[in-house]
Amino acid sequence: VRYFEDFSVGDVYRLATVPVDRAEMVAFARRFDPQPFHVDEQLATESSFGELIASGWFTGSLFMRMYVDELLTDAASHGSPGVEELRWLKPVRAGDELSGTVTVLDVWPSSKRADRGTVLCRSELINQDGETVMSLVSRGMFGRRPTGDAAGRRPTG
Amino acid sequence: VRYFEDFSVGDVYRLATVPVDRAEMVAFARRFDPQPFHVDEQLATESSFGELIASGWFTGSLFMRMYVDELLTDAASHGSPGVEELRWLKPVRAGDELSGTVTVLDVWPSSKRADRGTVLCRSELINQDGETVMSLVSRGMFGRRPTGDAAGRRPTG
Repeated sequence: VRYFEDFSVGDVYRLATVPVDRAEMVAFARRFDPQPFHVDEQLATESSFGELIASGWFTGSLFMRMYVDELLTDAASHGSPGVEELRWLKPVRAGDELSGTVTVLDVWPSSKRADRGTVLCRSELINQDGETVMSLVSRGMFGRRPTGDAAGRRPTG
Repeated sequence: VRYFEDFSVGDVYRLATVPVDRAEMVAFARRFDPQPFHVDEQLATESSFGELIASGWFTGSLFMRMYVDELLTDAASHGSPGVEELRWLKPVRAGDELSGTVTVLDVWPSSKRADRGTVLCRSELINQDGETVMSLVSRGMFGRRPTGDAAGRRPTG
């Protein structure tokens, strides 16, 4: 199990490459972000993007899955209080292959809850051409490693 | 059509209420955020949240749809460069009823592209108990209202 103590400033995690599936990308946009350039090939061609592109929330959700697969499986995750900054830098298109990195910027124990701490990370998603398509700085809450001390095992807050 | 010029600092848009569907919430999490407290009722009960809660990306995506329905339908939207701050403040649960507001914080014409401008908004999602469950400050790009001048009608960049 990966605990708060297992994260150190400067650590870099590499995210596995995932393809952007056209059908899923469009289905997501139809439900959550039905703007013409996200859902309609023809209208997208006439838009300022000139082509069909992914909803930024789809790209963010794909990132989340990559992040879960690399960092959160078997981690003592207590969720996230939020994102400091999210940038959609380049269009993401069907057929793109996204990979990425997560770099630990800072770590600090919670002042309110002795059983957990915050890990601040900067993440980047990169396409097959080496372009950074999305970046974000986000916070994750992780449980602290239990010690022999009973107080360390049980949540206090 | 809603153009850049149609947004003014202090404008408040009210988002229509939407229910959080359990099946959709869990299906989303299985695909994009398969942490125990998002996908498994029993494991969620044993987690620090004590109950099954929505992935923050699902809540964000629901917000996006509410935002599209209220503001972007028939708007000259050119997408978004990003989010300045995103906060998941309270758990979102199946059966919750979310509504919200979008307040215009600032507007400025693009210095690079004469055909568009940026609208900075602070948005809040509120549940049926009046709790703010999510907030975000985001930027949207909108086309400027065409004038009789030909240069105003055509994108310049």
